[in-house]
Amino acid sequence: MSEDIVVLAHGAGGKENEDLIKKLFSKVKYKRINNGVGLEAFDDGAVIPTGNNIVTSIDSYTVNPIFFPGGNIGKLAATGSINDVAVMGADPIAALDSIIVEEGFPISDLLKIVDSMIEVFESEKIAIVGGDLKVMPKGKLDKIIISTVVIGKLGDGKIYLDSKAKPGDKIIVSGTIGDHGAVITALQMGIEAEIGNLVSDCQPVTKVMRIARDFEGVHAAKDPTRGGLAMSLNEFASKSNLTIEIDEELIPIRDEVKALSEMLGIDPLILASEGKVVLSVDPEIADELVHALRKNGYEYASIIGHVRNDKDWNGLVLLRTKAGGIRILDKPTGEITPRIC
Amino acid sequence: MSEDIVVLAHGAGGKENEDLIKKLFSKVKYKRINNGVGLEAFDDGAVIPTGNNIVTSIDSYTVNPIFFPGGNIGKLAATGSINDVAVMGADPIAALDSIIVEEGFPISDLLKIVDSMIEVFESEKIAIVGGDLKVMPKGKLDKIIISTVVIGKLGDGKIYLDSKAKPGDKIIVSGTIGDHGAVITALQMGIEAEIGNLVSDCQPVTKVMRIARDFEGVHAAKDPTRGGLAMSLNEFASKSNLTIEIDEELIPIRDEVKALSEMLGIDPLILASEGKVVLSVDPEIADELVHALRKNGYEYASIIGHVRNDKDWNGLVLLRTKAGGIRILDKPTGEITPRIC
Repeated sequence: MSEDIVVLAHGAGGKENEDLIKKLFSKVKYKRINNGVGLEAFDDGAVIPTGNNIVTSIDSYTVNPIFFPGGNIGKLAATGSINDVAVMGADPIAALDSIIVEEGFPISDLLKIVDSMIEVFESEKIAIVGGDLKVMPKGKLDKIIISTVVIGKLGDGKIYLDSKAKPGDKIIVSGTIGDHGAVITALQMGIEAEIGNLVSDCQPVTKVMRIARDFEGVHAAKDPTRGGLAMSLNEFASKSNLTIEIDEELIPIRDEVKALSEMLGIDPLILASEGKVVLSVDPEIADELVHALRKNGYEYASIIGHVRNDKDWNGLVLLRTKAGGIRILDKPTGEITPRIC
Repeated sequence: MSEDIVVLAHGAGGKENEDLIKKLFSKVKYKRINNGVGLEAFDDGAVIPTGNNIVTSIDSYTVNPIFFPGGNIGKLAATGSINDVAVMGADPIAALDSIIVEEGFPISDLLKIVDSMIEVFESEKIAIVGGDLKVMPKGKLDKIIISTVVIGKLGDGKIYLDSKAKPGDKIIVSGTIGDHGAVITALQMGIEAEIGNLVSDCQPVTKVMRIARDFEGVHAAKDPTRGGLAMSLNEFASKSNLTIEIDEELIPIRDEVKALSEMLGIDPLILASEGKVVLSVDPEIADELVHALRKNGYEYASIIGHVRNDKDWNGLVLLRTKAGGIRILDKPTGEITPRIC
C-alpha cells in the first residue's frame, strides 16, 4: 500500500487506520488530563477528571446511502457517539453536533436526518447543547457529513477499558453481529433485493450497559462498529496483552447476514454492528449477565469465548472454527466495507 | 432564496445560517443541563454543570485553500475551537478532533496539517484526548474537513455571554479585524499578488481572555469569525436587546485589508478574524483594559463604540460612518465570503 497518499484502507477502521493515526498523533505530548484516559488509550472515549469525571468521544459519520433500512445518517451519528461513551461505563448527558452539507441538498432530507438525530438524543434524555452547520459548494462534498460529540458522567465510578480484560474472563456479545454492515454493504453492491427484511441494528446500547453495570466483574466493553467483532476482540487482546479464544459456532449471526456475507465474499466477523456490545466479564457472573440481557429483550446475548494468559498467543485472537480447527482472527486490513460509518 | 435546497448562504455564518439552524433545531426539547448554557443560547460554547462547570464547543473546518499565509486548516481547526471556549471565560484543557480526508490526499500534507494542529494545542497545554479519522472515496470530498471539540473549565466562575452586554458598556476589539477573511477571499478570487505581506491572524485568544478576566466588569466576549465584526455585534445587540453604536473611524483595520476589501467590493466588517476578541465591558474599566492589552502586545486594541438602551433601536447595531452619517449595520446575509472557515 502507498505510503505517500491516503487510501480508503486508511479510513476503514482496521490496521492501516490505526497505523496512520499513530503516525500522525504519536508526537502528541499531552494526551490526557491527570489520571484520566486520553489519546494514548485509543479507547472508545476519553475520561477527563474535572471534579466529576467526564467521558467524551467524537466521531464523524459518512454513510452511503444516507437513508437505509433501519435508519439514516442522523440516527447513526447520534447512536454512534452515545455508544462510545456508554461502553466506557458512563451515562451520556450532553451532545454537540456539527453538520456539513453539500450545496443543493434537499432541506426536506436534512430535516428528516436532523429529526432522527434529535429523536435518538431525546429518547435518551441527552441534551443537545451546541452545534455547527456548514455548507460546502456543490461537488466539493458528497451529500453530508455529521460529526457528533457526546459527553457523559461516570456515575458510579466503574469504567470499562479495552486494556482491562482478565485471564479467565468470558467474552459476551449482546446480540447478533454484523447487521448494519451487511445492510450497507449490500446496498453499496447493488444487491438490495437480497436484503429482504434485514435492517441495520443502529440503536443506543445504553440499556445493555445499564444492565451490565448492575454487575460487579465487568472488565471491558466495546461496541463492534468499523472493523466489526474481529477488530473489537483484537483491541481487547492487544491492549490487555492476553489471548482471546472465540468459538465460531457460538457467535450469534442472523441467517440473512450469513447469506449476504457469502454472496459478497465478506467475513461477517468484520462487518459493523451499530447497536451491540462485546464484553469481557468475570466467569462467575457471565451466565447471570447473559440471562439478565435475554430477560430484557436481548434474546441473542451469548457467551462466545474466553480470555486466557497464554504467552505464545497473547495479543492475538484465536477462532475455533466450526470445522474444529483453530485460526488466528486478524485485525481487519484493507478497505473492509468502505464508508459504512 | 430557495426554501427547498441547501444553498451556500445557509452555511455562511449570517442570517440564513441562523434561520436554517433554528428551523432544524427549534424542536429540541433538552437544550441544556440544569442551569448551564445550551443550544438555546446559540453562544460560542455550552456550559455543562457537572460538579465543576464544563464549557465546550464543536466546529467543523473547511477552508479553500487549505494552506494559506499565516496558517493552514489544522492550525485553524485547533485555534477556532480553543477561541470559542476561551471567549466564554473558560480555560481550555482538552481537545478531540475528527479528520475526514479524501482518498489520494498526500500523507505529507496531512502530517503538516496535523502537526500544526498539535502544535497549537500543545502551545496552549491542551491535551488531545481523543479523535477519529475517516477517509472518503476520491471525488466524494474536496480534500479535507477537520472537526474539533475543545473542553474548558470555568475556573473563576466568570462567564461571558452574548446576552450580558449592559447599557453604558464600551465595545472593545483586541486588534485589527478582517485579516483572515481578506487573505482567504483574495486567494479564492485569484488575486494573491495583491495580498503582499498580509497574513491570516489565526491564533488563540487565550492570552487576551486571561488579561480580560483579570478585570471585574467584562460582560460579553466573542471571536468575530464567520460573519465578521458585523455578526458578532449583532449577536450582542439582539441577545442583550440593546442598541450598539460603533464609530467606523475607531475600528482598527489594516491598510492591506482595506485595499483588498475595496478591490473585492466586500465590507471589511463582515470579513472573519481568527485571533481577535470583541468585548462589551463596563465603561469604568474600558480604558484600563485597552491599556493592559496594548502593553501586552495587542497594540491595535481599541474602544470602537458603546451600548445603550434605546427602545427605538434595541436589537440593532448602528454604525456612525466616517462621512458623519448613521446606518444600520445588518447581520450579514448571502454567501459573504464562502468557506473561509
